Formats: sequence, C-alpha cells, structure tokens
Amino acid sequence: MNVFAVTILGNNSALPMHNRHPTAQVVYYDEHLFLVDCGEATQIQMTRYKIRRNRIRYIFISHLHGDHYFGLPGLLTGFGLNGRTEDLWIFSPPLLKEIIEMQLQASHTVLPYMLHFVPIENEGVLVDEKKITVSCFAVNHRVPCWGFLFKEKEKPFKLDNQKLQQYGIPLSYYHRLKEGEDYIAENGEIIKNEWLTKPPQPPSGYAFCADTVFDERIAEKCRNVSLLYHEATYLDDQREKAMSRMHSTSKQAATIALKANARRLIIGHFSSRYETLEDFITEAREIFPETDLALEGTTYLV
Amino acid sequence: MNVFAVTILGNNSALPMHNRHPTAQVVYYDEHLFLVDCGEATQIQMTRYKIRRNRIRYIFISHLHGDHYFGLPGLLTGFGLNGRTEDLWIFSPPLLKEIIEMQLQASHTVLPYMLHFVPIENEGVLVDEKKITVSCFAVNHRVPCWGFLFKEKEKPFKLDNQKLQQYGIPLSYYHRLKEGEDYIAENGEIIKNEWLTKPPQPPSGYAFCADTVFDERIAEKCRNVSLLYHEATYLDDQREKAMSRMHSTSKQAATIALKANARRLIIGHFSSRYETLEDFITEAREIFPETDLALEGTTYLV
Repeated sequence: MNVFAVTILGNNSALPMHNRHPTAQVVYYDEHLFLVDCGEATQIQMTRYKIRRNRIRYIFISHLHGDHYFGLPGLLTGFGLNGRTEDLWIFSPPLLKEIIEMQLQASHTVLPYMLHFVPIENEGVLVDEKKITVSCFAVNHRVPCWGFLFKEKEKPFKLDNQKLQQYGIPLSYYHRLKEGEDYIAENGEIIKNEWLTKPPQPPSGYAFCADTVFDERIAEKCRNVSLLYHEATYLDDQREKAMSRMHSTSKQAATIALKANARRLIIGHFSSRYETLEDFITEAREIFPETDLALEGTTYLV
Repeated sequence: MNVFAVTILGNNSALPMHNRHPTAQVVYYDEHLFLVDCGEATQIQMTRYKIRRNRIRYIFISHLHGDHYFGLPGLLTGFGLNGRTEDLWIFSPPLLKEIIEMQLQASHTVLPYMLHFVPIENEGVLVDEKKITVSCFAVNHRVPCWGFLFKEKEKPFKLDNQKLQQYGIPLSYYHRLKEGEDYIAENGEIIKNEWLTKPPQPPSGYAFCADTVFDERIAEKCRNVSLLYHEATYLDDQREKAMSRMHSTSKQAATIALKANARRLIIGHFSSRYETLEDFITEAREIFPETDLALEGTTYLV
C-alpha cells in the first residue's frame, strides 16, 4: 500500500489573517515529497508542522500572485543555509526565474545546490517518476495559472502465490503476469491471468486546481480523481464578486467536484473577510456531500 | 513628553527558528510610525502584535539579505489590497526597486498608492520631520549595509510663567526665549534666558546598527544615544565565525554600546544555533550592564 496524502500549510487567500496563511501544500507519495505553491511564511509553517523539507525535489508554483510564491525566496535561501546539495526543480510561469535570480544576485548568494527552473507554457506531464506522474492543466484566472494533477500509474496485478504453484508458473514469467499477460504453457495451453492474480487497486489521483473562476472544463481535467482541491474564496452571496475577481464560490467548487466525479473534495483559499468557515462547508455539501475544509496542519489521504 | 519607542517584530538571524522571526522593528515617535527592515512574515507579526501598519509612511531597509526584506513584497501588496492611498517611501540599497517592480509586474499589480524608492548611497539625513530626523550611517557587512539613527531635534527651553510675569516679558518674545535667546529690555537691560526658563530635556536618540562585524567606527556614529540596537549573532566562543561571516558577538555589541556612551543597549539577530538566549545577556552585561535582549512583541522606550 502506498502512502499518498496532502498536508495543508496555508488555506487563506491574499492576506494572512485569522491565523490563516497564504497557499502552500505538501503532497506525499511514498518517499516523494512535492511542494505546491509557497506563500509567505511557508518555511515557518513547515517548521510548525514538522515537514521534512529536505526531501522536496520538485516545487510547483501555480501562478505569480504573491500569495502563492512570496515564501519561495526564503525557502530557497534557507535550503542553502542548511547546506542542501541535492538538485531542486521549480515548475512555474516563466518570469519566476528572473525574480529569484535577481534576489540571489542582490544578496551575493551562491546556492550550494543546483536550482532548475522549468517554465510552464503548455499542459502536459512535468514529472514522470516510477509510480507517479505530475502534470499541469490550465485553469482560468487573471494571470496565467496552472492546476496540478498527481496521478498514480496503473498498479501491477497482485500475484496469487498458491495459484502460481498450483499451475507451476516459472519465476521468469512473474513480471509479465503482473502486467496483466496470460501465461502460455509449453504445450500451448493458455493459463488466464485472472486465474493467477488479483486485480490491482485502481490508481489514485490528486488534483490541485489553484486559483480559478468557475470553469466546467476543469472538471474534465480532473475526472475520477480520488481527491480534488478547489479554491472557494467566497460564499454564494458573493458569486458576482467571485466572477469579477476570477475566483470561485464554495458551491462552484462543489459543482466541479460533482461533474468531475471526484471521490472527495477539499476547499480552501478563503477570503480574509470570513473569520469563520462553517458556512463554506454547509454550502458545498448541499451539492457535494463529501466535502471538507482544507485546514492548516491537517493531512488528507488521497 | 513625547512617545519615543521601538517594538521588536523579529530578533532572529537568517532562518526563522525557535519561534523567532527575521529582523523587523517598528519605531514610534508621537504620531509617526517607522518600519525598520521587513523580514519574511513581518505582516503576520504586525497582526499578532496589533501594529497599526497603515500609519507607516517611511520604511528603511538596511541591506538586501533576504532576512531583512523578504516580507516587504507581501506587506506592500497587502497595503494595496487594504485600499491604502497614502504615499509610502522606502529607503534602501538601490536594487530593491527593480526587485519589487518586477514582482508587481509579474502579478499585473497596480498599487492604489504611490511608492517612492529612495536609494541609499551615502551617509546623511533621509527624513526630516518637525521633531525628529532619521539618518543613515554605514556599517560593515558582506554587502552594502546601513544603520539608521532616529534623533529627536533639540527641544525648546521651558518657559517659567511666574518669572515671565515678574520681568514683564511681552508675549511676542516668548518664541525667542524658547530657542535660548536672552531678552533685551527697552532700557538696554539684559534679562538672561536662564532666569526665565528651565533647560529642556536633552534630545533622545535610537540607533539601529543593522548587521555588522565589530567596528569601533560605529560607536562614533551613535554617540550618546539613549537606546542602541546592535546585532549579536553569536556568543563569545564563536567570535572567529562572527568575524568571518561579518557578524558580531554579544560582547562586541556591548563594547560598542560602552564606547558610544549609550544609555541602554538591546541585542538581537540571534543565530538559529541558539535555542535559548540567557548566555547572550550574561556575556553582554559583563561589559555593559544596561543590556537587554530584543524580544519579539516587546516595546522598549527610547
């Protein structure tokens, strides 16, 4: 069983208020630890919630509004001060490279590790690891903005040890059986895969939908994910303001989850105008009952 | 009596650790509120300690190491989101303007207030208000770095009402008496100022000495200040490391306060290697007894 989960470090919109912080999330998959967005004070939140930040190799920045990346310069220089030597990759809209490099230059800082900036300009796969891929998809905001889909690869069929012995399958065929092939014996007899294996767990997926106005095309990009994060900056009575600011309401987030056939939904990026959050969950659950608030310091299994 | 005080928002060096934050201080003088340095999460600290940030007109950034300004982009855009319209002045080494403007441009942000960048390139007066001046002086660090001196202007002599009546001084001469002049009667008789007034309180001064290696020239720049802030990144046993990193020890900070004939000293910018701070105060007080730790959330009268 793989560990696939997300920890919320910040769930507020633009301003840090009501003890809530700007957007940052850590996605775990087995030994991998991915950072998604990095609002101001993310490094402080990482200390608070005991995130093992040195294991991060890939950082994904959805867009260049400050509440999604103003914590990055501090995190990057902090890695340097802590003696990091492992390469680090940052996927983001193009201008980020210049911004960070200018800041490093201003402080005469030479990082002790390699920093690779990968500009995002089209949808597609960004990271392809053994068991998981991370791809980006366009969302619809005031500036170029990207959602990120963390998708487990198809899992292997599970071998049934007893059956393998019963049918006398040689060890050298096991890996083919795991990939779903039948076994053909020397006498030409076909031993069907389904007699020898159990079907794998269906792959899980986590979609981070960044900042976006309500846009049904996003549901298509996130079809059947196990866990969907969608922003919910406002409540329903502010839906016109949401539209004009290119943000979403709680009900709209729930509608996307419903249309995407997601298993569960978490909502965040709450406007500072809301001191308490109960109404967000009430409104969303009218449409999509499997909704939770994305709470800081809380980990959600995918 | 004027209110002249400083509130510490961050007292740690480079990394936020042990619940300590990077450098930021608010200096109050009557209705003025000045911000000195703006490490990451300064806006969060301002909320925590109920700082009325909208009253800030002048921001002073000592140097462009991230722990002294990475909180500035968030503060500036936050002012915008909160609808600020009053002009704001930022005094700093030159490159800051480009850094901030590139970030505003990346987010397509147009601030609703005027932002004036004043590059610091020489020692001298930066702000000249009715009762106080702020000037900068060079300190000695790895990058161009400036200390700031907040100095009350000479206060007027206090008129002694009874004596004024006794000598029959006309009202139109009062302002000259306040400035220390004698009164010359119509018959040529000289009424000495000291018979008519009480001497004013001596003007107070607060010196912020930024990040610096031990450098006795700094004591000259801060002569006779009421309150001196000097960095103390390390304890005495790390004085070679302090030297090589262009920082100071607690004893060195105390030595500067002694040589400057300061009334009191506060020390900060503690290295993250120190979880507790008692030894800093012990070491400093051996040399300069009137030393205190610059503690976050604490206000020190000047």
